[in-house]
Amino acid sequence: MNAKLSYDERKQLLAARLKPSRFRHSLGVAETAAQLAARFGVDAEAARTAGLLHDCAREFPNEAMRAEADKRQIPYGPIERAMPLLLHAYLGAARVRELYGVDDDAISQAIYRHTVGGPQMTRLDKIIWYADMIEPSRDYPEVEMLRRLAREASLDEMLLMGLTESIKFVAAKGHLLHPHTIEARNELLLRGVKLPV
Amino acid sequence: MNAKLSYDERKQLLAARLKPSRFRHSLGVAETAAQLAARFGVDAEAARTAGLLHDCAREFPNEAMRAEADKRQIPYGPIERAMPLLLHAYLGAARVRELYGVDDDAISQAIYRHTVGGPQMTRLDKIIWYADMIEPSRDYPEVEMLRRLAREASLDEMLLMGLTESIKFVAAKGHLLHPHTIEARNELLLRGVKLPV
Repeated sequence: MNAKLSYDERKQLLAARLKPSRFRHSLGVAETAAQLAARFGVDAEAARTAGLLHDCAREFPNEAMRAEADKRQIPYGPIERAMPLLLHAYLGAARVRELYGVDDDAISQAIYRHTVGGPQMTRLDKIIWYADMIEPSRDYPEVEMLRRLAREASLDEMLLMGLTESIKFVAAKGHLLHPHTIEARNELLLRGVKLPV
Repeated sequence: MNAKLSYDERKQLLAARLKPSRFRHSLGVAETAAQLAARFGVDAEAARTAGLLHDCAREFPNEAMRAEADKRQIPYGPIERAMPLLLHAYLGAARVRELYGVDDDAISQAIYRHTVGGPQMTRLDKIIWYADMIEPSRDYPEVEMLRRLAREASLDEMLLMGLTESIKFVAAKGHLLHPHTIEARNELLLRGVKLPV
């Protein structure tokens, strides 16, 4: 059952499991990730697949996330306990193997990190994280600026700005900030990356 | 030499060591901290002293901070290595003992934490952190809102808003965010504190 499936088979499986707006968002992330991958010399098929499937565990209702994570012995901390929605990323990393026939650590990791980021992100991790923020159906005041950076800035500059905007947004909403997000951003700054103008 | 000194003696010592604008800021924090202490049932004299002396290590030029911290075997991490100015808080916690005759762990700790905060902050820690942000010579768009909260909100609500504004500001400037600041804020949220409206 977990044999390698084609992209179209995965797409059909996903369409049957996500609500239409989430499925459209997933297609948007897949295409945006493939474009970014081409720009930054990353395997575009891996990026497209990771983009397509990044939200594949969003099919679980919020209340079920912790039970699903516990069932798979996925470790998590107090932030995820308080915001179980975050677990969809970790569960997604497992679900692509269980259900979509993806046996690729790089894709699983990019899905695992697509919401809060993490230390030592790969180029694929960065592309999926960023594509999720700017795919065509996203609409918020800073999205055009972030789309412009996707054409003009370096991958690390884009990510730094994206993480910065995300942190400002989450802070202003009065939500918990995940330490991995802070770590990902600090790491870029400590390596000398600067916010693009 | 390190015998207990009076408040006025400490003030004179400080005036001789800080530039005038920093000394005025210190007096502002002392008075604001004393008022907050009265409101929240904390020892006002401890708050006034901690407020007065919170920046007592700002006399060291930025380039000297690391050498001074190393001399006292004060541990610090990559964030402080990259932003040695942060060390003035840790150095201040030592300097109040060395130079100002303050032998009070609670005051030293409040000074240690006055810039980036930390987990499990005491009421005194919170008051000094917040007073530093709103004392009368501070001027930035959100300061009047934060002053209003100092009259109307609970100490934890104030702190949550202050940490949130500080994180947004530091993020927007493209500066490193200290994990202790994030931890302090997450702790409040995990305890059920909400951003005041």
